[in-house]
Amino acid sequence: MAYEQVLLEKDGPAAIITLNRPDKLNAFTNQLGRELADAIRACDADDDVRGIIITGAGRHFCAGADISDGADAFDTKSGTGAKNFGTTEPGKSRDGAGFIGAMYACQKPLIAAFNGAAVGVGITMMLPTDFKIASDKAKFGFVFSQRGLPPEAGSAWFLPQLVGLPQALRWCMTGRVFSAEEALEGGLISEIHPPEELLPAAKRIVAEIAQNTAPVSVALVRQLLWRFGPAADPFGLLKVDGQFALSLGSSPDVKEGVTAFLEKRPPAFPGKVSSDMPEGYPWW
Amino acid sequence: MAYEQVLLEKDGPAAIITLNRPDKLNAFTNQLGRELADAIRACDADDDVRGIIITGAGRHFCAGADISDGADAFDTKSGTGAKNFGTTEPGKSRDGAGFIGAMYACQKPLIAAFNGAAVGVGITMMLPTDFKIASDKAKFGFVFSQRGLPPEAGSAWFLPQLVGLPQALRWCMTGRVFSAEEALEGGLISEIHPPEELLPAAKRIVAEIAQNTAPVSVALVRQLLWRFGPAADPFGLLKVDGQFALSLGSSPDVKEGVTAFLEKRPPAFPGKVSSDMPEGYPWW
Amino acid sequence: MAYEQVLLEKDGPAAIITLNRPDKLNAFTNQLGRELADAIRACDADDDVRGIIITGAGRHFCAGADISDGADAFDTKSGTGAKNFGTTEPGKSRDGAGFIGAMYACQKPLIAAFNGAAVGVGITMMLPTDFKIASDKAKFGFVFSQRGLPPEAGSAWFLPQLVGLPQALRWCMTGRVFSAEEALEGGLISEIHPPEELLPAAKRIVAEIAQNTAPVSVALVRQLLWRFGPAADPFGLLKVDGQFALSLGSSPDVKEGVTAFLEKRPPAFPGKVSSDMPEGYPWW
Repeated sequence: MAYEQVLLEKDGPAAIITLNRPDKLNAFTNQLGRELADAIRACDADDDVRGIIITGAGRHFCAGADISDGADAFDTKSGTGAKNFGTTEPGKSRDGAGFIGAMYACQKPLIAAFNGAAVGVGITMMLPTDFKIASDKAKFGFVFSQRGLPPEAGSAWFLPQLVGLPQALRWCMTGRVFSAEEALEGGLISEIHPPEELLPAAKRIVAEIAQNTAPVSVALVRQLLWRFGPAADPFGLLKVDGQFALSLGSSPDVKEGVTAFLEKRPPAFPGKVSSDMPEGYPWW
Repeated sequence: MAYEQVLLEKDGPAAIITLNRPDKLNAFTNQLGRELADAIRACDADDDVRGIIITGAGRHFCAGADISDGADAFDTKSGTGAKNFGTTEPGKSRDGAGFIGAMYACQKPLIAAFNGAAVGVGITMMLPTDFKIASDKAKFGFVFSQRGLPPEAGSAWFLPQLVGLPQALRWCMTGRVFSAEEALEGGLISEIHPPEELLPAAKRIVAEIAQNTAPVSVALVRQLLWRFGPAADPFGLLKVDGQFALSLGSSPDVKEGVTAFLEKRPPAFPGKVSSDMPEGYPWW
Repeated sequence: MAYEQVLLEKDGPAAIITLNRPDKLNAFTNQLGRELADAIRACDADDDVRGIIITGAGRHFCAGADISDGADAFDTKSGTGAKNFGTTEPGKSRDGAGFIGAMYACQKPLIAAFNGAAVGVGITMMLPTDFKIASDKAKFGFVFSQRGLPPEAGSAWFLPQLVGLPQALRWCMTGRVFSAEEALEGGLISEIHPPEELLPAAKRIVAEIAQNTAPVSVALVRQLLWRFGPAADPFGLLKVDGQFALSLGSSPDVKEGVTAFLEKRPPAFPGKVSSDMPEGYPWW
């Protein structure tokens, strides 16, 4: 797929996807959502990519849905809403929301690097990422209640899972815009950096993972934690993780991991996500 | 219903329910539970109410169950326990606990304003609220283990959802009484105020919501977050929230929300919870 | 069962289980797992025990799996892995992991007292404890991704339940070792003490519980919070907790709890976990 609204580059083990409509504050459109989903899936299939960074071009991360056409911006029965959220069949579904599925299924760490304001779908679409770091210029807002909309893109599940139900309720009920500092205190992000140090910080996370960990293990971490962490009990997981431990226990990755540790040298794991996931994966 | 143990007043967009047995430290009785549930349902049905504040008369919020009659206070087979927790049929059920259902189903923000000690059922009955703020004179205690009782009123679910399992276990296993500061650190409350500034702070929360948000959106936030936030995965939610977004996308509320935002003026949302919830609501 | 790799002692209401392979940094073996599970079950069956403390002999808590035999340490098809993780039938299951079941089912408070490094299975096996406190010499690491392994022992469920999904993802994806301070900030532990004050602090927790609370209540707290706290909704719990409240309401424990409170004296609860759990327990 050729991209018009996102950029995709690689820098060592990191893939960098940049929301790229800076003159529109990177406002979300149906096309941007589709391109983002496609770019994530492409990185996920590439064994050389050890982490996927998502950031924005210019001074904003994503100002939310593109409402430059006014009151009909969300009306999927009219031309504007259909353009932004509809599909070939207006009023039927929001296929631009496929980025949720692409992120949830991803087997690589996802790092959101908020360079500026992330508001509305600009923040809700990033909730399924694993690391969230921000520039000190970033702002956030779950503003749907101020626009007459419901929480979108699965955010009524993702946000409580990430920051807890009380904080999620407070942010969503008021709909107000808040600072990076408040986002850090509330558990939405884990690091704040000066603007020019944001992308280097995101790359450091990918580099740390690339240098020290096995791709197959990290893929299992991502899928097991997201799919079983919110479960009602550990029993479903226990049927699966013991089997993976047995299967990987005799793998070249574990032999290398133990040997490298005992020899006090960096590991060089041979296993690939594309071909070496353990028996029984995917289990769902 | 005429109330004897609670007061219900309105102040602009806020409804204020006051537990009103100050000579008994607002101790819980079956009747108080029924009146509280009824008052919440009445406020929920009133489109003029944008937020429901619950506080206590006098120096305490609620000292827990009324145990002034002594050792038989919880014995529903005797007169006293039946009075406080039983129904027409002693030993059968605790119909005073209907406040849990009333709060869980509520479509308006619920704000607990703890003016003083909230102990035992005095705190567990408030767990389903959305905002919890306190006077610096407030104290809290999940004291059931110190009385020989089990966790009550669904608190074994609500408390871990609100403050996490480790903090919930620590407070419930020791049963000790703790300060407003510890409640803030542990995530049980989100604000501490001097006593005279507590009710104004609660009203500010309601005013902020009333000025900026759509009632229909806030009702959806409340129901979607409480019902789907603790779910094992986002799939059930994703079947529902996309449909609500499509339905509301062409609503007068969204047109007003977008227009007001673009015109940089406060919104005046026409939609009412009593008549304008989107197609498919309630979904459960 | 005679223990070779753990010590079991009693000190007043506290039972203390010590991982006791100090020359091997208390590294985990299949046998150690079985002995730990057995010791927990023995304490759980003993009405005199009000809390179970788990700590390590020497300078470490548990350095993880015993990998002193090298690359085959996790290979259950070879001699070494079978010894550490296999059963009589290599490659079939990890019966040493029975400690998870023993802890999950336990009716007494479990207190992990981390005297030193707790890495790999050294920390994951302790996740089902209720209180986690540490010496300032302690270190932690969810290092499986650095060894080529998956998250083990149900940790993909337990860790997100305890510290939230974002923190769990960050620790597990990088696999890095971190300090007691970071563990405290991240919510993994709740107290840090100088080494010589660690065990006294653990005993104080048990003493506080023993002096003030009813054993039957604490057993219900443990089982209700762990089994219903992570549930998707409160409805399953509400069917159970009201019945327990009715059943216990007329119990000698409640009469003593209320009377002692009114008389401002310490309670002396007669109820025993071995014989006095309320009707309908266990409910699962």
